[in-house]
Amino acid sequence: MKILILGADGYLGWPTCMYFSDLGHDVYALDNFSKRKIELEFGINSLSQNYNIVQRIEEWNKNIKKKINFYNCDLLNHRNLYSILERVRPDAIVHYAEQPSAPYSMHSREAAVFTQYNNVIGNLNLLFGIKKYCPNTHLIKLGTMGEYGTPNIDIEEGWLNIEHKGRKERILYPKKPGSFYHLSKVHDSNNIEFATRNWKIRCTDLNQGVVYGIETEQTKKNEKFFNTSFHYDDIFGTVINRFIAQAVKKKNLTVYGSGNQRRAFLNIQDTLNCVRISAENPPQEGEFRVFNQYTEQFSIDELADIVISAAKSNGIQIKKEKLKNPRTEMEKHYYNPKNESLIKLGLKPISFNETLASQMISKVLKYSEEIHEKFFKPKVKWVE
Amino acid sequence: MKILILGADGYLGWPTCMYFSDLGHDVYALDNFSKRKIELEFGINSLSQNYNIVQRIEEWNKNIKKKINFYNCDLLNHRNLYSILERVRPDAIVHYAEQPSAPYSMHSREAAVFTQYNNVIGNLNLLFGIKKYCPNTHLIKLGTMGEYGTPNIDIEEGWLNIEHKGRKERILYPKKPGSFYHLSKVHDSNNIEFATRNWKIRCTDLNQGVVYGIETEQTKKNEKFFNTSFHYDDIFGTVINRFIAQAVKKKNLTVYGSGNQRRAFLNIQDTLNCVRISAENPPQEGEFRVFNQYTEQFSIDELADIVISAAKSNGIQIKKEKLKNPRTEMEKHYYNPKNESLIKLGLKPISFNETLASQMISKVLKYSEEIHEKFFKPKVKWVE
Repeated sequence: MKILILGADGYLGWPTCMYFSDLGHDVYALDNFSKRKIELEFGINSLSQNYNIVQRIEEWNKNIKKKINFYNCDLLNHRNLYSILERVRPDAIVHYAEQPSAPYSMHSREAAVFTQYNNVIGNLNLLFGIKKYCPNTHLIKLGTMGEYGTPNIDIEEGWLNIEHKGRKERILYPKKPGSFYHLSKVHDSNNIEFATRNWKIRCTDLNQGVVYGIETEQTKKNEKFFNTSFHYDDIFGTVINRFIAQAVKKKNLTVYGSGNQRRAFLNIQDTLNCVRISAENPPQEGEFRVFNQYTEQFSIDELADIVISAAKSNGIQIKKEKLKNPRTEMEKHYYNPKNESLIKLGLKPISFNETLASQMISKVLKYSEEIHEKFFKPKVKWVE
Repeated sequence: MKILILGADGYLGWPTCMYFSDLGHDVYALDNFSKRKIELEFGINSLSQNYNIVQRIEEWNKNIKKKINFYNCDLLNHRNLYSILERVRPDAIVHYAEQPSAPYSMHSREAAVFTQYNNVIGNLNLLFGIKKYCPNTHLIKLGTMGEYGTPNIDIEEGWLNIEHKGRKERILYPKKPGSFYHLSKVHDSNNIEFATRNWKIRCTDLNQGVVYGIETEQTKKNEKFFNTSFHYDDIFGTVINRFIAQAVKKKNLTVYGSGNQRRAFLNIQDTLNCVRISAENPPQEGEFRVFNQYTEQFSIDELADIVISAAKSNGIQIKKEKLKNPRTEMEKHYYNPKNESLIKLGLKPISFNETLASQMISKVLKYSEEIHEKFFKPKVKWVE
């Protein structure tokens, strides 16, 4: 399969490139380094990544028949994107190439505008490029479970059958996003759904839970070279990864608000499995298919408790510390998202538990000196 | 009331300025002439408008105590917008300032991108400006009935109470927009709903039907100066206005597809009434209120029949001519949109009928020489 991976330098993009390469596919990797620029803006760093993507690919390609190809391309530059689509004509496109941080999108007008401009217009360019150069390709678009918010009804997978005054309709599942970032993903989904309907292109929209983890089968092959980025900061860090970093620094785990907020999670290795399963089972022509891509649910409090126990077994004594919630979100809510589709197609979920948290702590301990405590504190407030 | 009218040079913007000025309000008019630029691009013209907005305002201000103020401002230029919001601190903002054509948005990648960039980012800038300079203002945002598409259930006013597996939720009414233009309005509504929730600003989103008509109480005061724009072309022309122009040129009325498509309509004078009623009855702090702003429903076929009869009474013999539908839309569908809210608040609808169509024909006959038949034909196809 010829697979084009957009956002190949990211936390998930890079492991996805190696994973599909390992499976023998032709991998075309693309990035514009916009996340690196935001790192520079906030003076933050990923842990554990010593080499840039060109160096990593060079090293990877030494031991593989089908080389990974890299393109420096911004989706906002449609001519550049078009020329790549024309040359590659991929069978599948995995689209991670979006500004991925909710706090960043709430930081300022500039950041909100960049987020929606970059994500929505980049994705529009991609849709027009697909229509023009590879209308049969399978677009695998990364969305997030956060788009749904916390509705009082079960969260179905993308579509909902409703009855209203005795008449029936199938609707896109109603979303209640909680940041300009999450909104950008909703806008994307609406644009893509129209494109599938109007131009008969095919798409799988993956509403992904919060990803955690630092290792995949491929990063382990050569940690020094192949590690992916690992953020513990308030801009790009996801909650489990931050808790692990806090534990490593023997700091209390900062829980925003009550800690009763429930969210959906999955291991980074499961992200790779889900994307592969989607790619191996493309939707029909004109189909807008949505999968909820997560494996487990936890409240933030429950996660903190698991990491605290894991820290204890590593000889680290820490506890929870509640902070005023910087976000606007419900702290007590119903939460019942469905995720049968990927399980039915063969996903075997990895569980987050004390053992796994303990392994993560051991691994991150090696990078302890690189962790700066000042980045644990949330800087961005939803309302100021 | 200090009222800021965005998109003041447009078909609805200009009559709205005069209307609120006549009612004794302080009117601040803003435009960036982006629609004029699209007219130039396609070589099209509005009928019946001899003077530009600066000249029209000069003439209008001769006979009025509270002068209309005009600003040349692009919402994409947030510094310019901010300085106006800071100076004016309006009580209400009527937001028409968006690329308003569905066919234009489907013309090319460039046009789709311009539409979503201009509309979504302009509106985002406005939201940030409101938060900063006039958080209590009442944002009156123009959306369209077209955002809803043609669902198999009743179209409620913006929100829908649903029950799913025994649990209840109130959701934003699910929309199925049929063009990148309509999508831009859906994106706006989603962004605004979040802003009302997060920042507690207040908004009325007016999902407006297709507007027709050429006269308001104010244009009649001095037709030469105060006429608003009237488009009959395939880019900006709405269906009734185009039928009237076709009748005036003794041309058959071109119906796209079966003609069974039902849509919601209102007279331009009723647009003014609806906007006034909304402004006089602001929503609560933090409320995202939606009104369906239309007065009547017709199928395209029914409209053609009315105009054909009206033409006959003016001695013009024409008939219907079916064209292959350039749009992707359902041609046979359920359609039952609600519009009680504005009626309850006092709207007294004007009806479209043979008499009214006949009056429109008489008026447009004066501009017959300015009408170019080549613009009757749809140039833009949804799928090519």
